[in-house]
Amino acid sequence: MPLINENSRGVFVIAATPFADDLSVDVAGIGRLTEFYRKSGADGLTVLGIMGEAPKLSSSEARTVAAEFIRQAGDLPVIIGVSAPGLAAMSELTKAVMDMGAAGVMVAPPSTLRTDDQIVSYYQMVGETLGSDVPVVLQDYPLTTTVQMPVAVLNRIFETVPSIKMLKHEDWPGLAKISALRAAEAAGARRVSILTGNGGVMLFEEMQRGADGAMTGFAYPEMMRDVVRYVTAGEIDRAQDLFDAYLPLVRYEHQPGLGLAARKYVLKQRGALASDKLRRPGPSLSDADRAEIDRLMARLDRRLKELG
Amino acid sequence: MPLINENSRGVFVIAATPFADDLSVDVAGIGRLTEFYRKSGADGLTVLGIMGEAPKLSSSEARTVAAEFIRQAGDLPVIIGVSAPGLAAMSELTKAVMDMGAAGVMVAPPSTLRTDDQIVSYYQMVGETLGSDVPVVLQDYPLTTTVQMPVAVLNRIFETVPSIKMLKHEDWPGLAKISALRAAEAAGARRVSILTGNGGVMLFEEMQRGADGAMTGFAYPEMMRDVVRYVTAGEIDRAQDLFDAYLPLVRYEHQPGLGLAARKYVLKQRGALASDKLRRPGPSLSDADRAEIDRLMARLDRRLKELG
Amino acid sequence: MPLINENSRGVFVIAATPFADDLSVDVAGIGRLTEFYRKSGADGLTVLGIMGEAPKLSSSEARTVAAEFIRQAGDLPVIIGVSAPGLAAMSELTKAVMDMGAAGVMVAPPSTLRTDDQIVSYYQMVGETLGSDVPVVLQDYPLTTTVQMPVAVLNRIFETVPSIKMLKHEDWPGLAKISALRAAEAAGARRVSILTGNGGVMLFEEMQRGADGAMTGFAYPEMMRDVVRYVTAGEIDRAQDLFDAYLPLVRYEHQPGLGLAARKYVLKQRGALASDKLRRPGPSLSDADRAEIDRLMARLDRRLKELG
Amino acid sequence: MPLINENSRGVFVIAATPFADDLSVDVAGIGRLTEFYRKSGADGLTVLGIMGEAPKLSSSEARTVAAEFIRQAGDLPVIIGVSAPGLAAMSELTKAVMDMGAAGVMVAPPSTLRTDDQIVSYYQMVGETLGSDVPVVLQDYPLTTTVQMPVAVLNRIFETVPSIKMLKHEDWPGLAKISALRAAEAAGARRVSILTGNGGVMLFEEMQRGADGAMTGFAYPEMMRDVVRYVTAGEIDRAQDLFDAYLPLVRYEHQPGLGLAARKYVLKQRGALASDKLRRPGPSLSDADRAEIDRLMARLDRRLKELG
Repeated sequence: MPLINENSRGVFVIAATPFADDLSVDVAGIGRLTEFYRKSGADGLTVLGIMGEAPKLSSSEARTVAAEFIRQAGDLPVIIGVSAPGLAAMSELTKAVMDMGAAGVMVAPPSTLRTDDQIVSYYQMVGETLGSDVPVVLQDYPLTTTVQMPVAVLNRIFETVPSIKMLKHEDWPGLAKISALRAAEAAGARRVSILTGNGGVMLFEEMQRGADGAMTGFAYPEMMRDVVRYVTAGEIDRAQDLFDAYLPLVRYEHQPGLGLAARKYVLKQRGALASDKLRRPGPSLSDADRAEIDRLMARLDRRLKELG
Repeated sequence: MPLINENSRGVFVIAATPFADDLSVDVAGIGRLTEFYRKSGADGLTVLGIMGEAPKLSSSEARTVAAEFIRQAGDLPVIIGVSAPGLAAMSELTKAVMDMGAAGVMVAPPSTLRTDDQIVSYYQMVGETLGSDVPVVLQDYPLTTTVQMPVAVLNRIFETVPSIKMLKHEDWPGLAKISALRAAEAAGARRVSILTGNGGVMLFEEMQRGADGAMTGFAYPEMMRDVVRYVTAGEIDRAQDLFDAYLPLVRYEHQPGLGLAARKYVLKQRGALASDKLRRPGPSLSDADRAEIDRLMARLDRRLKELG
Repeated sequence: MPLINENSRGVFVIAATPFADDLSVDVAGIGRLTEFYRKSGADGLTVLGIMGEAPKLSSSEARTVAAEFIRQAGDLPVIIGVSAPGLAAMSELTKAVMDMGAAGVMVAPPSTLRTDDQIVSYYQMVGETLGSDVPVVLQDYPLTTTVQMPVAVLNRIFETVPSIKMLKHEDWPGLAKISALRAAEAAGARRVSILTGNGGVMLFEEMQRGADGAMTGFAYPEMMRDVVRYVTAGEIDRAQDLFDAYLPLVRYEHQPGLGLAARKYVLKQRGALASDKLRRPGPSLSDADRAEIDRLMARLDRRLKELG
Repeated sequence: MPLINENSRGVFVIAATPFADDLSVDVAGIGRLTEFYRKSGADGLTVLGIMGEAPKLSSSEARTVAAEFIRQAGDLPVIIGVSAPGLAAMSELTKAVMDMGAAGVMVAPPSTLRTDDQIVSYYQMVGETLGSDVPVVLQDYPLTTTVQMPVAVLNRIFETVPSIKMLKHEDWPGLAKISALRAAEAAGARRVSILTGNGGVMLFEEMQRGADGAMTGFAYPEMMRDVVRYVTAGEIDRAQDLFDAYLPLVRYEHQPGLGLAARKYVLKQRGALASDKLRRPGPSLSDADRAEIDRLMARLDRRLKELG
């Protein structure tokens, strides 16, 4: 399987973790879900992200899930989240998944980091520990990690840790950061691929600022595929019309915590998951929630027809 | 001026603080801004909120701003934010603004509160300190305060602090909280008015769950007025069509920090502010930001025409 | 090996993790360290605590360390820290270490917990997941976890989760909590063993308030053994004289972060560790630090001689 | 009154705020307390610190307290804490207290600051706002503010904000920071005075690392005076013997939150305060707490006699 690099583009869908109704891992369901993502426009997958249900897996389950996604993905590159409290555990999981054929690993900073130097030296240790041949995605997600990485810090990291090939951009607000990183690149800084998160809620603007695509789990990957495609092709109005049509649902899934339950419900309604169960502790949808989502899905269908 | 009470309804706009280009308070501009809010559908105003620029005012400026908004608002009720690190300062400001004719005061919890009992006893102290004749709005805004108030805690507070008449609901996700509070009311708990925040990003659903209106600063108050009105009238599709039209801009203003700069820019474009300057420390818009907002405003106009 | 229970008493030393100078786990050194702790007065050991270097071990290393400490400890009970972001990983490790002969497991709350109900239901899930036959130590350490557990919450947990047998008390300030828990017990609440942490910095007072002993890693366990013994025997002045003699060093080790490096240095000086190396990221001592510690150790020796 | 400067030395006692039993400000008691501090060895006072009861004063009370301390202090320099959420309020209070004769003002960073540049630019704004003629103390207290300031950041601030004359050093652990700042000074960086906090719990070592004195509120300022004097005179053993004698009480007062109640109790027992009441919300001592403190005070007296 090809590795990710600094020119990787498109939509890497953050994959949901399928559970059976008894909350065991639904290994068989991983094939169905992967097929859904592929058909919906995924250029790659990201598995075991920190905001999903990866922390609720045992370490053996986590490896099973990673292995099965990689197997089912075939030629689609799969990035595995390996964030861990310590470097030894991160290294152990990284070796395992790279051997399975992963395209790279993603590392979010531990929430104890505060100063610029702490952040830079953390990623230098990550780079040294994982080795120069493992492509790394740096996840910049202050809302969850509480770690704030200014552009100057990111550029110091990119300069000194060549194995970092991609930025999972999830700062909020974060448009200025994309513009500044691309300006730095134009002035000679090393290029990295920038894929954006936050459920896609700013995707249209992010693409215009210079992002290379999206890395998030919105349950309609075709929206992300098309927005990326249209902006890239210069069809700006078309991109924004499409984006706006999906925005009510994007917004609903963007609710912290509850959004994941909403997302699994949509994936189930769309036939991509057999069960929308979440492991404890986790939110569950009420009848009112489900009615709201059903309504949003129906309205989306109508709006897409209007747009033609 | 009438006081707010547990049946207050409609749109209380969180008022921006007008500065001149030299960053002095633009007292004269308060009249223009108040007139804009009134014409755009405000049923009341909220001034000196914690997320705006109130913390950047000196204490004398804060009183000047409060007094002028109250004077200009005439018969519109004005709620004044009086959150403070200590009860003595809160009490001092509350006495001053109630004497000026404020309709009530709003109090967010200090970020040091953690346990249920700490939160309940804090609001009991607030109620005792401010006195039974001052209507209080409890601001529930965990994203900023880090204080999480479960429904059971809110109901304990409402039960033991009768002067709390209104909940500024700004939990996120927070729809289930509205449903649960209304269910508790149906089961006999004391009613409080619920106005919702978060820039209006969930307003349509919040109204359907039982909110009484909105209290947020979105620069198109007419959207909030109409969504509240249509949902109340049972015109659900019409409400949601209108809401969706504004959603791209609602989302843009909902960006933490930067959103306030975007909002002031829109207010200036709409003629409600003479200057969109923010005091330091604070974000400022780039040309790219302004171009994005201009585009969103133009698209909104077109979409509203389509909707007729 | 016997399990811990609600009447467990004495000193459970939080064991350091021995590394060789090349930072591999010094498995052979575990025997020497265990012997040191036993001779210094340990009634039990606690391994893989959240504040030490456990998070820096890979999962296979963690099991090796746990197994070797359990093997070397013989009839001394060994508690294993199993705190984890998810219940599946916690359950997996718990099963493994209980099979090895652990005396119980210790669980700190995830830092995302805020409200009373969240905390109670978390420990209920822990109890259900680990099973009624696994004795659990609840670690109450707000300085690190940011989770505040009032006495009422602890008693709700003790009442509904019978497998919790011990409280690792590490609130600061926390003396009133011990008094209140013992008062509740006198009024009929279920008894749990209370062992105190925080490096022993309040141990004298904690014992007088009703603690059953200490669970912390201070490098002179004999101080903790003797303070526990003397207070229990009613020799209050003798206990406090001894405590005060050690206090300058207790204080030095109580420095967050750096304290662990100081502790390993003292353990090395005392012959308990072959190397005082810490894995990255971690603090390291300067010459000035070492000189200060040497001085404190020398002064301690003199003071102990004065006390006779 | 003389202003503080980069060579200020000695003990600046953080003054308690005296309340009457009815919790009104005991203005008359400020004279008595000031006299106590002077006789106990204070070289200066610091009033309205962030960790005391200043946030519980109204703005008019705060000015009254500041004015009375300055009046009573006579030729003793008085530093006033002016930390505020916004620069306008900080500027307003600074102007007022400098006009009253304050020797300087102290500013802690708002807890929202994270990155190096945010911290540096915050203090640059403070310096510009307060003006070059107002000596500023930078308070570095991460345990409370959550803002971490590495040595490089402090030196960038000192270099670009000449009005900062003093560092209130309250990092923990913080000995390495003092050493590094003094090494930087030896290498040519601008000198600032370093006074240390944290209740004095590391004072002996801090003096040896190069601190110029203490700025904290320990209720026996004579200990701080003598430790500073003896270390300065090279009488190291004598300094440490004395320090160790007081350490059990230093430690007791160092308990977060509760420590302030303990301190006021000791000050009342020593005749420095008429009442040890704290304003709400705040901790209160139990009978057990008071008995422990009485015991520690009696033991201190005996130990001081032993030392001669």
